[in-house]
Amino acid sequence: MRAVDLIRQKRDGLALGEPDIRAFIAGATDGSWPDYQVAALLMAIVLRGMTMDEAVALTRAMVNSGDRVDLSEFDGVPVDKHSTGGVGDNTSLVLAPLAAACGATVPMMSGRGLGHTGGTLDKLEAIPGFRTRLSLDEMRRVLRETGCALIGQTDQIAPADRRLYSLRDVTGTVESIPLICASILSKKIAEGIGALVLDVKAGRGAFMKTLADARTLASWLTGIAEASGVRTEAVITSMDAPLGRAVGNANEVIEAIETLKGRGPADLERLSVHLAARMLVLAGIAASGQEAVAAVGRALSSGAGLEKFRAIIAAQGGDPAVIDDYSRLPQARHRELVPATRDGFIVGLDAERVGRAAVALGAGRDRVDGEVDHGVGIDIMAPVGTAVRRGDPVLFLECDDAERRHAAFAIVAGAIEIGDDALPATPLILPSIP
Amino acid sequence: MRAVDLIRQKRDGLALGEPDIRAFIAGATDGSWPDYQVAALLMAIVLRGMTMDEAVALTRAMVNSGDRVDLSEFDGVPVDKHSTGGVGDNTSLVLAPLAAACGATVPMMSGRGLGHTGGTLDKLEAIPGFRTRLSLDEMRRVLRETGCALIGQTDQIAPADRRLYSLRDVTGTVESIPLICASILSKKIAEGIGALVLDVKAGRGAFMKTLADARTLASWLTGIAEASGVRTEAVITSMDAPLGRAVGNANEVIEAIETLKGRGPADLERLSVHLAARMLVLAGIAASGQEAVAAVGRALSSGAGLEKFRAIIAAQGGDPAVIDDYSRLPQARHRELVPATRDGFIVGLDAERVGRAAVALGAGRDRVDGEVDHGVGIDIMAPVGTAVRRGDPVLFLECDDAERRHAAFAIVAGAIEIGDDALPATPLILPSIP
Repeated sequence: MRAVDLIRQKRDGLALGEPDIRAFIAGATDGSWPDYQVAALLMAIVLRGMTMDEAVALTRAMVNSGDRVDLSEFDGVPVDKHSTGGVGDNTSLVLAPLAAACGATVPMMSGRGLGHTGGTLDKLEAIPGFRTRLSLDEMRRVLRETGCALIGQTDQIAPADRRLYSLRDVTGTVESIPLICASILSKKIAEGIGALVLDVKAGRGAFMKTLADARTLASWLTGIAEASGVRTEAVITSMDAPLGRAVGNANEVIEAIETLKGRGPADLERLSVHLAARMLVLAGIAASGQEAVAAVGRALSSGAGLEKFRAIIAAQGGDPAVIDDYSRLPQARHRELVPATRDGFIVGLDAERVGRAAVALGAGRDRVDGEVDHGVGIDIMAPVGTAVRRGDPVLFLECDDAERRHAAFAIVAGAIEIGDDALPATPLILPSIP
Repeated sequence: MRAVDLIRQKRDGLALGEPDIRAFIAGATDGSWPDYQVAALLMAIVLRGMTMDEAVALTRAMVNSGDRVDLSEFDGVPVDKHSTGGVGDNTSLVLAPLAAACGATVPMMSGRGLGHTGGTLDKLEAIPGFRTRLSLDEMRRVLRETGCALIGQTDQIAPADRRLYSLRDVTGTVESIPLICASILSKKIAEGIGALVLDVKAGRGAFMKTLADARTLASWLTGIAEASGVRTEAVITSMDAPLGRAVGNANEVIEAIETLKGRGPADLERLSVHLAARMLVLAGIAASGQEAVAAVGRALSSGAGLEKFRAIIAAQGGDPAVIDDYSRLPQARHRELVPATRDGFIVGLDAERVGRAAVALGAGRDRVDGEVDHGVGIDIMAPVGTAVRRGDPVLFLECDDAERRHAAFAIVAGAIEIGDDALPATPLILPSIP
């Protein structure tokens, strides 16, 4: 079938067959479909939607556009975690070592920060020497040595996704559940996993603003992944305020190490333990959720998780001494106080604004090809629920560039809500079934 | 506003403002919007629609993408006719000379045939020497000499339309009322007219298959044209069976000349007189429909229309002797009979199939860059309503290439419906208001 006929079929609201979708993805990958036809079909998909069968076929075609990593040499079920993107979310740096310390094989392929959300790769690259660009052979070596590899997407993995994503970004076709799911899952499935825990964020700092929308995304992701042969579970978590107390890169690495030392923020520890436990259950390493939580708790309190992180850093070329000496990490020398403007309780800390302020400081990127300054970031002194007096520090903006601090200040000032009464604490882990 | 923001706005079902639409058309014309962004916005327009205000702004932006012909030297209101495309529709060749003979200024810019529908330019070019590619200066000279110019679109007229149309053709974004209207009307408005009669075809040989759809298209076309300052009236006409008795190019020229001599098919004469009369009314030359019909009738019976056509042919470089000597027109030497397969009455002659058969003979084109053979075509011996006996000629296929005749025969055989009883004649001119 000709490209224009497939476009017309989707435009008219009809489902595409698996061979149609294969032809589309093959054409988009090898360039035999010109950009304008890919863009027209993407817009028709955004507005007409896809059936679950179409989304499964799309994901499969995108996986097959590149290599699929062979992890058959490893015992058990390789397992990964994916988050739909948040602010101050460094759970990967905590849970991957914890899960690996409990015996899981964790081939974690992560992305970079874009827009107001951070990315695991940027955080890891704050560690001097840490290499995220490993070949698939190097990835397998690190997995053999440590049980965990924390790497970036390689050119061999789902090349169709790169072509589609760069077009979606400039044609207003990002916001489509089937396209989002295929993009996320094709990369995860291609990395060779057999199980996957999804952290679907809901709230004003998340892609999905409402619990209902997050549940819809979670159910599509789970449905497609299961149909693709990956045991999958989605956890829906709140992303109204940033997770933990650090937003940036080096400061989030420090916070993750602190958490592995047993003295991190409670919300970050709780979520990391929960997600790591679900990974153990899905991978068949723990027989029950309780057993899994207990195992992860032991890995945390014994320091096994911390030692695992040290080993991973060393295996990937990083400086493992950062574990004990944070001064080896890049750090801004200047910081600026963002004070409480009145007495009361912090009742809101808008994650999206905090994320945008971090980008303004240089911790993230507005464009795919932007540069990141690993030493800048935001430290949260008064998280939601804290009683404050006027003038008390709520945030510190850490950055040596006064102009950037100024721009970030203007953005975060509106992020802080102070009320007369403390609001009841809202749950971090939300019910995933209505 | 950035291109991607405009695309997202339309994707989300919001109307675009006039400056947005100007930016889109400017970007599409000068290439500063890449094809993939133009294609994505076109698909969003197809699926989300446009308001009347948006369609008016789109049409204006497309007019302003090129030159607008200055016809201020001419007295009165320049007037044109446009048809949405039919089979065997050579009314332009009849009504343009008739309206000019009645004193109208008729700057008619026509198109070529595409798909199963014919085009006025192809028909005119069957006349040896006839030049349809006139410069705008030459167009004005011919208008001064004869009151009528029959020309093709020049590069200066609505260049945005060419860029959009070529993309729409390959991205499944042809079928959109606002895009169709802006394409038609931008070219007409740019040619300098002040009044326009629209012949909106309805039926199986037309773009709009139902009367309701034709009315919708007619009301959009009229609304946009009036808002653009052009006095406009739409006539809805039946296009179930071909108009007249000839489908092709040279044979349609002969049929038009015969009609100007007062001996053409009744349906073709009636429609040509009706449309020419409406042109006179809109241009303010006749005070009423009755007066206009009488004036056109006199131009027909006196031979003034015929002499006007002779003058136009001469002014545009064609051989005026064709008026008296049809052998000067290209003509196939071989013809093949398509007989009635049973006794009865012709109750249907599917215009779309007849049009496709004519294309198979070489009279039209499947691709924009296809070549036309002006001497081939189809002559209808037994139009709808005729009593036939088995073996009687229904059609003649005129073409020297036996293979093409064979292909056309296979297509038209299914176009002929013969019933036991004659059906009541269906009206040619349909009610344009429900």
